[in-house]
Amino acid sequence: MEKSSKYKEDIDYEIIQDGTITSVPEVFCSSGHCGIRKWKDDISIILIPGNTVCSGVFTKNRFAAAPVIVSRQQLAKNRNINAIVINSGIANACTGYEGLKNAEKTIEIASEYLDLKKENILVSSTGRIGKQLPLEKIEKGISFCSKNLRADNGHNTAKAILTIDKHPKEFAVKFFYDNKAIITGGIAKGSVMVEPDMATTLSFIATNIYISSGMLDCILGHCVDDTFNCISTDGCQSTNDMIIVIANGCSGARIEDKDSLLYKYFKKALHAVLENLSRKVVEDGEGATKVIEIEIKGASDKNEARSVGKKIANSVLFKSAMYGEDINWGRIAAAIGSVDNNIDSGNIDIYLSDILIMEKGMAKDYDETAAAALLKERNIKFLIDLNTGNASARILTNDISYEYIKINALYKKQK
Amino acid sequence: MEKSSKYKEDIDYEIIQDGTITSVPEVFCSSGHCGIRKWKDDISIILIPGNTVCSGVFTKNRFAAAPVIVSRQQLAKNRNINAIVINSGIANACTGYEGLKNAEKTIEIASEYLDLKKENILVSSTGRIGKQLPLEKIEKGISFCSKNLRADNGHNTAKAILTIDKHPKEFAVKFFYDNKAIITGGIAKGSVMVEPDMATTLSFIATNIYISSGMLDCILGHCVDDTFNCISTDGCQSTNDMIIVIANGCSGARIEDKDSLLYKYFKKALHAVLENLSRKVVEDGEGATKVIEIEIKGASDKNEARSVGKKIANSVLFKSAMYGEDINWGRIAAAIGSVDNNIDSGNIDIYLSDILIMEKGMAKDYDETAAAALLKERNIKFLIDLNTGNASARILTNDISYEYIKINALYKKQK
Repeated sequence: MEKSSKYKEDIDYEIIQDGTITSVPEVFCSSGHCGIRKWKDDISIILIPGNTVCSGVFTKNRFAAAPVIVSRQQLAKNRNINAIVINSGIANACTGYEGLKNAEKTIEIASEYLDLKKENILVSSTGRIGKQLPLEKIEKGISFCSKNLRADNGHNTAKAILTIDKHPKEFAVKFFYDNKAIITGGIAKGSVMVEPDMATTLSFIATNIYISSGMLDCILGHCVDDTFNCISTDGCQSTNDMIIVIANGCSGARIEDKDSLLYKYFKKALHAVLENLSRKVVEDGEGATKVIEIEIKGASDKNEARSVGKKIANSVLFKSAMYGEDINWGRIAAAIGSVDNNIDSGNIDIYLSDILIMEKGMAKDYDETAAAALLKERNIKFLIDLNTGNASARILTNDISYEYIKINALYKKQK
Repeated sequence: MEKSSKYKEDIDYEIIQDGTITSVPEVFCSSGHCGIRKWKDDISIILIPGNTVCSGVFTKNRFAAAPVIVSRQQLAKNRNINAIVINSGIANACTGYEGLKNAEKTIEIASEYLDLKKENILVSSTGRIGKQLPLEKIEKGISFCSKNLRADNGHNTAKAILTIDKHPKEFAVKFFYDNKAIITGGIAKGSVMVEPDMATTLSFIATNIYISSGMLDCILGHCVDDTFNCISTDGCQSTNDMIIVIANGCSGARIEDKDSLLYKYFKKALHAVLENLSRKVVEDGEGATKVIEIEIKGASDKNEARSVGKKIANSVLFKSAMYGEDINWGRIAAAIGSVDNNIDSGNIDIYLSDILIMEKGMAKDYDETAAAALLKERNIKFLIDLNTGNASARILTNDISYEYIKINALYKKQK
């Protein structure tokens, strides 16, 4: 039925102006200052009442923070999540048994103030590693937030979850299906190291579609692979990363199965939100002056494509060259060549935008003036063709600047 | 016989003052200026006549430069190497078929001027990627060098193989066995990126011991694993790395088998030379203000120990913190946790010198004043105890500074 001429094969979603997580109906946010850090809001609650389906992806770091461990356990037991409590300033990582208890206690406190069951609540933290959460402050904050939950508060929460990010990261899209408006919106934080102690990326997304947990997991996994898993600012994995999507179903639109057009439409919409938010993380990269897109094609599989792209993206030499607006493509070749696989260097082409710089593994004469002009732009694009298979990937990254070193090295001295 | 009381189980080698590759008898060097670069010497020959045994290790980079490919082929066919021709300024990498032909042609030219068979000659290059060797200049250089080979010229050659290194790297040791003086000495280059285009480490070692090629391979492999393979300045693998050891046997001391004391003694001496030279590469790290030793113990195997150490060493966050003399140990924990293995984070201890900073994966109170004082030193030492097995590794690395970014980003602009 769905596949009748009534529906296009593809959907054109609409970007909601000033869209954020509370652009999604029945999503409420509240943020406040409980005193974990000095001046900025440091505690937030996202509330999504009713029957929901939640899916999450978490850092693979072995030093996963207490909120990561606890939220992962919560989600393993129950997918109906109604609230997320987020604190900034303290990561609650490397805090042992006491840290786990504090994350659980945060859930207990929220359960009381929000009148929800403990199993319906997740926690998330970002900030300095190695400090315990001050529970009294957390309780004060939850108490305040629980009384101020509002449907237009997404922007405040997008700001409260930031640490040293310069800009809040919010985005929402809408599409119609069967006269129902399906809205997907989210917020994110991360600017490489945020809090000069660690790299943390948090992202919280809401949608009013109705979807099963299995399908939501599947779509989230695919979308994260292409978006948040394809950004790299400094190759440093965080202990606190998490992305949470909650679907409250209140649009009335229901995804019946994986072959339906609605499944496809929603996947595209969620992809758009995650892509936009992940791009904003790169654009806010600490000290960065460039946003660099590295497209890899002709790889034998997706993993290979991503490994090659990330090896380039994480090369400090490459990043320094980009900051200096100097192409130095030998550094790209050396990075590709250091990936541990069966790439044949004699097949590889490197393009800067559409200028062929290296062909079949060999230097090539090219228009250096045109290349120099492209490198002066804020957005730079490379294409690497491995000329082997059909897989591709696109990695977003930054340059590395004096400012980056300053922020990450001299923070303590500047205070 | 050897194991009689006449010989100690262990040897105390003597460091030769101002020792270099020509401290080894019957080793001759010559360097000159052939015009590949503007002001500095750019071509060198190391000559070791007679019957020799040569062993080499080469970069694993898929974009291995032409001299790497050609020298590897030469060594596969013949282990009696009498000469190495080294040019600086052009890496002869990403130069395709013509690059290979030029490396072979360099050997032909050297064969004529040195009156050696082609099979007895190796070539090595360092410098900018993607340019062809100017063979006329190379011939002029070889012609000059072939007439100026001297037994006291090691220092000049140690300088001529440098690119933007600040200091030449030379070292030699001597020990006595059966009244024979066994001398092992070498030179190296590398200061991370040398030539702001790539990272290149070259090292050439000579010894007057007599040894079979199999045993020399074995000893070199072991020693490189613990020395040059345990330094990391920026995690960027080069296209031109090579380490060559040539044994001319003229001391008269002969290693009979792998169980002999002389084998053990020589291994220790070669290890000392490689360790010293590799440390000098780190000490000369571009823009570096610190030399950081990361010792990993309690690992389940050597690979795990090395992976953990290198992950920390290559964390830009960690390196920035070291530059800022700020401990930020959460960055060390996050780096360890991002290694893809079965480490249990709850077992891990982190020490700064002998101060325990993190215990069993948890933050610990420690003397911050004492720690701050240690971080102000040029030499900093961390110990990570994984508390799992018995394997260990020691990684040497640098901090990352403004100066590093300047050298690698703004080189072109400064010219």
